Amino acid sequence: AKDPSSSASEAESSTATSGNILVEVKDKMQIITLNRPNKRNALTLEMYDEIADVLESTGKDKNITLTVFTGSGSYYCSGNDLANFLNVDPADLSAMAVNGGKVLQRFVGSFIDHPRPLCAVINGPAVGITVTLLGLFDAVYATDKATFHTPFSLLGQSPEGCSSYVFPKLMGNKASEMLLFNKKLTAQEAFECNLVSEVYPDHAFQSEIWKKLAEIAQLPPNSLKTSKNLIRDAEREILHATNERECQLLVDRWQSEECAQAVMNFFQGK
Amino acid sequence: AKDPSSSASEAESSTATSGNILVEVKDKMQIITLNRPNKRNALTLEMYDEIADVLESTGKDKNITLTVFTGSGSYYCSGNDLANFLNVDPADLSAMAVNGGKVLQRFVGSFIDHPRPLCAVINGPAVGITVTLLGLFDAVYATDKATFHTPFSLLGQSPEGCSSYVFPKLMGNKASEMLLFNKKLTAQEAFECNLVSEVYPDHAFQSEIWKKLAEIAQLPPNSLKTSKNLIRDAEREILHATNERECQLLVDRWQSEECAQAVMNFFQGK
Amino acid sequence: AKDPSSSASEAESSTATSGNILVEVKDKMQIITLNRPNKRNALTLEMYDEIADVLESTGKDKNITLTVFTGSGSYYCSGNDLANFLNVDPADLSAMAVNGGKVLQRFVGSFIDHPRPLCAVINGPAVGITVTLLGLFDAVYATDKATFHTPFSLLGQSPEGCSSYVFPKLMGNKASEMLLFNKKLTAQEAFECNLVSEVYPDHAFQSEIWKKLAEIAQLPPNSLKTSKNLIRDAEREILHATNERECQLLVDRWQSEECAQAVMNFFQGK
Repeated sequence: AKDPSSSASEAESSTATSGNILVEVKDKMQIITLNRPNKRNALTLEMYDEIADVLESTGKDKNITLTVFTGSGSYYCSGNDLANFLNVDPADLSAMAVNGGKVLQRFVGSFIDHPRPLCAVINGPAVGITVTLLGLFDAVYATDKATFHTPFSLLGQSPEGCSSYVFPKLMGNKASEMLLFNKKLTAQEAFECNLVSEVYPDHAFQSEIWKKLAEIAQLPPNSLKTSKNLIRDAEREILHATNERECQLLVDRWQSEECAQAVMNFFQGK
Repeated sequence: AKDPSSSASEAESSTATSGNILVEVKDKMQIITLNRPNKRNALTLEMYDEIADVLESTGKDKNITLTVFTGSGSYYCSGNDLANFLNVDPADLSAMAVNGGKVLQRFVGSFIDHPRPLCAVINGPAVGITVTLLGLFDAVYATDKATFHTPFSLLGQSPEGCSSYVFPKLMGNKASEMLLFNKKLTAQEAFECNLVSEVYPDHAFQSEIWKKLAEIAQLPPNSLKTSKNLIRDAEREILHATNERECQLLVDRWQSEECAQAVMNFFQGK
Repeated sequence: AKDPSSSASEAESSTATSGNILVEVKDKMQIITLNRPNKRNALTLEMYDEIADVLESTGKDKNITLTVFTGSGSYYCSGNDLANFLNVDPADLSAMAVNGGKVLQRFVGSFIDHPRPLCAVINGPAVGITVTLLGLFDAVYATDKATFHTPFSLLGQSPEGCSSYVFPKLMGNKASEMLLFNKKLTAQEAFECNLVSEVYPDHAFQSEIWKKLAEIAQLPPNSLKTSKNLIRDAEREILHATNERECQLLVDRWQSEECAQAVMNFFQGK
């Protein structure tokens, strides 16, 4: 197996979308890298659409066994870019909220329906939507320096990414600590909560995890795909219904006085 | 934040129902205390109704963010007061069982439908119905001296509080150890089983937990309420169906020879 | 309580089916022993049917409280006997696959519908179908020398035993490590994943577990039976639907080039 940290020129293929998302195919893996390190990989509205485009369009490529997400730099992802909420003309707020809900619902839906095993390589702190989405992955590997934080109520918002359904299933009475009460989990805590599949010491993480993934990607692809979709089919309908409901509630939340006040407090460091 | 252990006169409000249940509102929390310490807070039929009354009537008070349960003295609660089963005229058994089922179903239903986040402060051993109900709470905080025991089969009975549905979801193949085989869990074991959200050293429990809850109660209330009900709505129907079925089976159990014998053995210390 | 390791002559009853399955009743337990130690208790097609016969026929015996599975020798079970796949005339492959699916579906269904508490005494390594089935047991007790391995994708196959539904419920994002990526769990890991109820040191396992089971078997039988079926009824329908779907997919898998190649590689030690 090639060293996956090798230069892009060695990759079997490489697709540029915007500079904020890197997509490359090597060793039978499609690797999607969140690549906005100076903003801790915060997601712009454009990035939501680009990621959905990739997940929807390349799912049928028979040369690919696995799809893998990771982040550039020290963060995995700091979540939704709150700049998405700034400088909105009050007259445009409603339209913006409705559009945001549509973008989010399509984005989460593309994770629900991606037909191949979906793995996350969590290279550092993960926040918000990129944490809740992990419940839709098949495997989540994390450095022991990663943290997992979903501060929805601090921002006057409510959960997405199907976490309102998946997190209570994963971790029972600990789900509200994350989804309602803003508890930040360590990688070890997230492992004990069944959100993370395996934790690695940071110094060995990059070398070990890419070697492991390259091995997994050699397994019989149709067996993997059949097994993954067998598991997903059992919940596909309820996941889509949850996604729709979560997005509806967020459209309301985004237009609420409470949310406006909380986001303003956040930017003022209160 | 005020010291929640301060005298009642400092509370923002205080409602007396019977002396067996204390209800007070302070720091945006509604605190319900099981207050029958000389009986280890065992629940009389009257207490079931009083608690349901409180949960149903105060759910819409906009000055309250959280509802919190705790116990007076060294126990959280020793469960259903078995004196409820004593001195029943055989001719009245059927009517008593049917009435008990109705009281229980309404009581559990008031937990399912309570619209605000529901937290438990487990100050000592918890038994029976007050353990099974914890699966319907949003967060459960326990001293490390707490224990969790549901000795249904020892008493010839069957599970309630929606535990037949919620416990297998929380703890998988460990649920039967509790619900069928009478295993008593330590606080740490209950934490590892996702029944308890956080465990505290006993000496620090009261000071730390009330401080934490007072902070949580300052979070945006509509965000918390929306998120809590989003999570609950995903299972509300199945929880009510489970509650109904569990109560039906208990009405049968209470009239069975096996249950009569088991309760008699219990009182005779066999 | 008698010593359950005592000679067969002391058992209250003993039923021979084939030599590969031992069935005996003692201390109110029906004990089913996988007894093909020279093949690590691998399951032949005949054994699937014999076990289903036992589970279906003896469920109503009122003298029995518990049904217990264990293995002879150092293995619990090495899974499906791959010899079932060997020496098949290509012209017979389709008929063999369809028949195998029927045998498997009936076998798994007999675990779903067995009316008494079902306990597993895992005396050593467990592989494949005998691991996935554990999600349908009420309690799983393991020596610390046991391991749990479901190498489906290594063999080009897909999960059965309702594991595609039950395992994600038990262990969240760790399920794919087992079901897709062939991770072998230690007994302790399986305990932390809620697949195993309790782990015992190997030197004490046989003496402690049979004593515990003999005590459990003295509990009120109708209470146990009611509680067990209350829990099962909540999922009975979805379990049967999952079983049917899993078997359909396996019938396809068994006829695939990918599976033939993977099984051949296995026998050639690749």
